[in-house]
Amino acid sequence: MKRAVVLLSGGLDSTTVAAIAKSDGNEIFALTIDYNQRHRIELESAKQVATALEVKNHVILPLNLRSFGGSSLTGDLDVTKNIPIESIGNSIPTSYVPARNIIFLSIALAYAETIRAETIYIGVSAIDYSGYPDCRPEFLTAFENMANLATKSGVEGNKISIAAPLVYLDKTETIKQGLLLGVDYSLTHTCYDPTDKGLACGCCESCLLRLKAFANVGINDPIKYANC
Amino acid sequence: MKRAVVLLSGGLDSTTVAAIAKSDGNEIFALTIDYNQRHRIELESAKQVATALEVKNHVILPLNLRSFGGSSLTGDLDVTKNIPIESIGNSIPTSYVPARNIIFLSIALAYAETIRAETIYIGVSAIDYSGYPDCRPEFLTAFENMANLATKSGVEGNKISIAAPLVYLDKTETIKQGLLLGVDYSLTHTCYDPTDKGLACGCCESCLLRLKAFANVGINDPIKYANC
Repeated sequence: MKRAVVLLSGGLDSTTVAAIAKSDGNEIFALTIDYNQRHRIELESAKQVATALEVKNHVILPLNLRSFGGSSLTGDLDVTKNIPIESIGNSIPTSYVPARNIIFLSIALAYAETIRAETIYIGVSAIDYSGYPDCRPEFLTAFENMANLATKSGVEGNKISIAAPLVYLDKTETIKQGLLLGVDYSLTHTCYDPTDKGLACGCCESCLLRLKAFANVGINDPIKYANC
Repeated sequence: MKRAVVLLSGGLDSTTVAAIAKSDGNEIFALTIDYNQRHRIELESAKQVATALEVKNHVILPLNLRSFGGSSLTGDLDVTKNIPIESIGNSIPTSYVPARNIIFLSIALAYAETIRAETIYIGVSAIDYSGYPDCRPEFLTAFENMANLATKSGVEGNKISIAAPLVYLDKTETIKQGLLLGVDYSLTHTCYDPTDKGLACGCCESCLLRLKAFANVGINDPIKYANC
């Protein structure tokens, strides 16, 4: 059976991608990076999703990106709230974590090379993407080329592919695809600034995009929200 | 003053590179990744080198690559010993750590972007390089291009450069350059399989290359070796 490493945050996108990777016929090796993010509850979501999808293995790897800071998700900037939804993506928000997806893909690459996986799945989208430069297809292509120059497997001809099946989907289309695959979105976590009890705030950029997408699909978002 | 992040392992190469980065007029932000390597004593060397070079800051970041294994440096393969020195570099040895330099450069990139450093220095060499594919100049160029596509600073025109001043030097030339800059090589650690007391083994591929280089320079290596 072919093998895939899936970067699984526990969010809506990566959960959908894990379901897609499974439907593509892969044995799933899930990788979650505990980067000491503010929204640590997503680690619990990742565990639940991994269990629900019956992955072969789930590695949760600590890497404390608070050592550097530079982002609202790692503590030293405020999460942007209640901005007009049409302005999301016009500029790079405070939730940008320097080099996050490069780091995550690099670690996934180490995992993939070790277990001889053919593919790394990542849940980035260049459509509903909050303006992050590391969600664009030109980055993914450049990463894949670089990775195959720098690894033993790549040099030996066993190239590793980066699969980003959501890259041209907006979040509405992502949810529709996930529902077709039976994804249980009640397990997922999206909010950047959850309450102490783990409720989504409902007003950060991430909640706003999620709520809009569920409204577009025409179903209720199964997770609970605080009053914003 | 311009800023540089230096990937500092505590080894001979990265120590020389840190001295070069300083002589280039940079304020030095040293980054050491504690990847749970077998030769953990090099972390102590990194601290001593950082102190000796009076760096602005030194971050030692844990990232447990034993979670994946796949290398003699992270525990599940044996370190190669006593191979003919002329055969080093002919094939990729067991000490290859999957995607190590990609991961290290990615984390250095996060640090560099956060502190607005212009340059990341790394001590790789494509000459005395043990056959690692992630020490080659084509990898470094591909990484730099990818990094500037994927970061806020890159997209905004503040590109970050990867400097590898040893990439075309053999280890003899590296030591000569370091000595000109006043590097104290007694602080450095090179061995992949040190004794319990921290003595270099003298017969792993890394020791063999180091000893040969000091012999070529015509001076005694100032570190202590066990009887091999």
